[in-house]
Amino acid sequence: MRMSKLAPLICRTQRQAHALFSSFQIAMASSLVMCTLQMRGRGSLVKCLQNVDKLLLRGIGTNVVSAQAEATRKEETDEKVGHRSFYAVQVERQEQAERSVLISCPFRVNEKRFHKYLLNHGDINKFFFYESHSVYAVVEFASRESVTSLLEAVAIPIVSDESVVPFKSRLLSLRNLGAVESPNQPVKQCQPQTTIPINELIQRLSKEESIDQQINSLTEAYQLTEENSRLRFLVCSLLKDIAAAYFPECTIKPFGSSVNGFGKLGCDLDMFLDLGGISGYSPKSGLSLEYGMKRANSERAVTQSILSVIGECVEQFGAGCVGVQKILNARCPLVRFAHQPSGFQCDLTSNNRVAMKSTELLYLYGELDPRVRYLVFTVRCWARTHGITSSIPGAWITNFSLTLMVLFFLQRRSPPIIPTLDYLRDLAGPADKNVIEGNDCTFVSDFSKIQVESNKETLEQLLFEFFEFYATFPFSRMSINIRKGKEQNKPERTPLHIQNPFETSLNVSKNVNSTQLERFVALCQESSWLFQQSETNTRRCNGTPIPWGLATLLLPSQVAGIKSRRKRKREPATERIKSLLESLKNKKLSRAETSSAGL
Amino acid sequence: MRMSKLAPLICRTQRQAHALFSSFQIAMASSLVMCTLQMRGRGSLVKCLQNVDKLLLRGIGTNVVSAQAEATRKEETDEKVGHRSFYAVQVERQEQAERSVLISCPFRVNEKRFHKYLLNHGDINKFFFYESHSVYAVVEFASRESVTSLLEAVAIPIVSDESVVPFKSRLLSLRNLGAVESPNQPVKQCQPQTTIPINELIQRLSKEESIDQQINSLTEAYQLTEENSRLRFLVCSLLKDIAAAYFPECTIKPFGSSVNGFGKLGCDLDMFLDLGGISGYSPKSGLSLEYGMKRANSERAVTQSILSVIGECVEQFGAGCVGVQKILNARCPLVRFAHQPSGFQCDLTSNNRVAMKSTELLYLYGELDPRVRYLVFTVRCWARTHGITSSIPGAWITNFSLTLMVLFFLQRRSPPIIPTLDYLRDLAGPADKNVIEGNDCTFVSDFSKIQVESNKETLEQLLFEFFEFYATFPFSRMSINIRKGKEQNKPERTPLHIQNPFETSLNVSKNVNSTQLERFVALCQESSWLFQQSETNTRRCNGTPIPWGLATLLLPSQVAGIKSRRKRKREPATERIKSLLESLKNKKLSRAETSSAGL
Repeated sequence: MRMSKLAPLICRTQRQAHALFSSFQIAMASSLVMCTLQMRGRGSLVKCLQNVDKLLLRGIGTNVVSAQAEATRKEETDEKVGHRSFYAVQVERQEQAERSVLISCPFRVNEKRFHKYLLNHGDINKFFFYESHSVYAVVEFASRESVTSLLEAVAIPIVSDESVVPFKSRLLSLRNLGAVESPNQPVKQCQPQTTIPINELIQRLSKEESIDQQINSLTEAYQLTEENSRLRFLVCSLLKDIAAAYFPECTIKPFGSSVNGFGKLGCDLDMFLDLGGISGYSPKSGLSLEYGMKRANSERAVTQSILSVIGECVEQFGAGCVGVQKILNARCPLVRFAHQPSGFQCDLTSNNRVAMKSTELLYLYGELDPRVRYLVFTVRCWARTHGITSSIPGAWITNFSLTLMVLFFLQRRSPPIIPTLDYLRDLAGPADKNVIEGNDCTFVSDFSKIQVESNKETLEQLLFEFFEFYATFPFSRMSINIRKGKEQNKPERTPLHIQNPFETSLNVSKNVNSTQLERFVALCQESSWLFQQSETNTRRCNGTPIPWGLATLLLPSQVAGIKSRRKRKREPATERIKSLLESLKNKKLSRAETSSAGL
Repeated sequence: MRMSKLAPLICRTQRQAHALFSSFQIAMASSLVMCTLQMRGRGSLVKCLQNVDKLLLRGIGTNVVSAQAEATRKEETDEKVGHRSFYAVQVERQEQAERSVLISCPFRVNEKRFHKYLLNHGDINKFFFYESHSVYAVVEFASRESVTSLLEAVAIPIVSDESVVPFKSRLLSLRNLGAVESPNQPVKQCQPQTTIPINELIQRLSKEESIDQQINSLTEAYQLTEENSRLRFLVCSLLKDIAAAYFPECTIKPFGSSVNGFGKLGCDLDMFLDLGGISGYSPKSGLSLEYGMKRANSERAVTQSILSVIGECVEQFGAGCVGVQKILNARCPLVRFAHQPSGFQCDLTSNNRVAMKSTELLYLYGELDPRVRYLVFTVRCWARTHGITSSIPGAWITNFSLTLMVLFFLQRRSPPIIPTLDYLRDLAGPADKNVIEGNDCTFVSDFSKIQVESNKETLEQLLFEFFEFYATFPFSRMSINIRKGKEQNKPERTPLHIQNPFETSLNVSKNVNSTQLERFVALCQESSWLFQQSETNTRRCNGTPIPWGLATLLLPSQVAGIKSRRKRKREPATERIKSLLESLKNKKLSRAETSSAGL
């Protein structure tokens, strides 16, 4: 039975999905791979793990396969195979998370002994270590009963000179008392869960043989790993335990970058509290009972109440939860905190169902063609490097806007690489119908219905064309619209207009001012120009590869320098481009001249 | 099998007690009495209920039996019979509460139909109505499964123009849609759960034939009813559901007036969050797991954290919980709120185990001799009437101080009516051993070990002697000490010194200033004097009985008037007493002259 055939079944209910996957996972227990997670590198153990996982399921865009191989596979196999609906993946990840525990470990612990200790409580599906302040292990058991069994053996800590808040969760701590570990016991090869520094990335890209390979390598280095994705769902699940104390039917789901396929290692964890099946009921005639429930003026006030309590719990009880802020008067009320054990900056919202649909839409586009994700990763990385986007809110372009720009660009290819949102809506079945607060969020969830035209453009071509497209886009008159897949006249005078895909009267990039837009356009011009100068070269100066192709685009920009908020000294843009070109030419010459000798 | 024989068994564990009582209660289901609670009056239905209850158990000092009958019973039956340990009673009340739901009802509902509707979910042990803002029903099922079954049929309310916080509790609301109730359906005869106004009490007392009967009648009117006591445990149980979401082993127990046998209808509900069996654990050698728990600097900080979360839940989710205050920086951190459905002003504390032992001690003294409770009720009512005690904190004597003064007085009788605390400590068995934060709180819990000497004084004698005792007590030199049962030299210069029974270095009445103590002494003098003037008389003026005996003591005092904080116009005390005496004499004359004719 192939997973692809399971997918439609899974959606029916979470309970059914649970049962189905449980049997699968028990079968998988024998494939247990115990390894040390290498968040940055691609060690053989990680590859081994990935292969095991691929047998079972396809992760949320976390599998690293080259664009070409992916494209080949796509052609060879049926469209229906390998694409699992967003909800099927979510449900399964949630299920895995509920069978998992998070354990803080001493640096030197005998992995085999630890593993054996855990096996006393049942079969293990997945077991990996990572580092965040301290070393942690994520242990996914084959059944929830094993977690229950494990927790029964867990002690309350005794701390001298301190007291503990006796709130029990699945965040545990391993103690190794009185045992003498071999001094040769290797220290865990754990890597932090953040992306590599930009200089390291540039070096790595410079070693690649083609721009397509560079784009592939960038995506590989930046995208969420299988393990990081599991960890995100586990943090949601731990938080769900807190909320479920009062709302047993609730779930807490990650949304945005964590699950839309475009998340970068280290990105924030956006979570959505879904109260699920709690709804009103119309009694028939006669006697009936209702719960005595607190009244509030609005749904917003209810959300504020619930988030206030959860925020208080996280602050007072949540071990490793620091910097808790209740931002309840925001347009979308939220609780923000840093979860130290995972290293995630977390935002918990509720009643945010349109954001969930946007996430699903991006996921769908990312799954339709592998080039979507590669291009989005590259453009996002390029934009962040040049300060086009920022982690702090302001007048700059957001990642979401940028992603919509890439999608729109791909819709405008000939033939289009991805279809319009209106097309996806027209394919929707009755079960896909979804209107949220008056906004039509309907689109097809069944990938097999979607017909995509055959476009054979390479990533290199597409990236170049992207820069060309936006270097010359008539931003002053036209609006970007992925629903129609073509430019529309702007309804307002904001510098950049990108229609919100679901709340169509809203402009996603209303915040962007003309300075920021001009910087974006100038950088597109510069990058498109630099692209044309590029040639494949992997020779090294003194063992260090010389930046070329995509790597060049990530070097400090002359254009960005002029108008960036860092206010470097001013020179005409053309002058800077000229000098950059000169320096590149000189480098090429020197490379040609010196061969592999030291500079 | 008599209840008295069950008592020692019950203490072992709550679970055993549960099982034992469940079988009893199922047997009791056939004795179900459905009635309308009359909180003030003593309707035949209430008496009927009381009889049913007496078959099963003795409540927490809520059964009304005349002092004489009680004394007789005490002599006739073995000491061991009828006295259940404080904890046995608590455990059973908690059990009852967990099987109960609280239902807000329309004013006109057919009781039989409602009862039949509820019976669909299982046998009912107890069912009564009361009024607090609206009409409420307390329904105690024979088993918890019935509550589960009932809750499965309960709907989420749909409210137009409003939203609800979907937190489910056992506070429900009855709807009666589309049904046409007979217009002759009687409106429920519900009474508010507060004490009767003082004037009404004075009238009632004036009708009694003897001072002993007056004291009996006062106690009967003021003490907690069986139903009010159940309601208190039910509110604790509802609050426990909130706390148990995070601390499954916890209990919330009432303490103080609600359960010490001296509570007045309408008194505050003091609650204590007991985290129970949550404690540290010393791991053996080798690998072991601990919960990852939030650290705090002190137990106090832990208490503050927990109360902060519970306070937030009560405020945001608790239907009918209003005026929530988190008073976390008090010496004993607490959450205060008004629970509208019950009408109780609630204080929730934690880590307050000494207060729990004090409660148990007062309960024990109250159970040892029925005269203890009668005298305490009378003295407390007398003190409140004259502004000696107050509901707001200040320099006046507290109810707890006043109660210790009554207990001390009873220890000083010859022969003593109750034993000293040291005697009770010496009788304690190993299981009674209890040291809380260095304070020895040990005393015997088994009533059968306590030998009480035979003192036959009447309530009238005792009340008079109480006033005499404190009118002449050497407060300036001596301390009141129920541990030794005799005066001790004062260790400090505060006007009134009453040793805290368990924290023996503390003075319970440190807050009392000399003005308040002088008012108390002057009132004791006046009352003792008035007592001597009293004669039994039940004649009426125009149908209204003339105040006499105890009723006279509750009339506005001349002494209290002088120094009360209301600052009435000043006159020498002796003058006022003289004029009061004159007026009483005149009244007696007029009564004698006019017989039952109008004044």
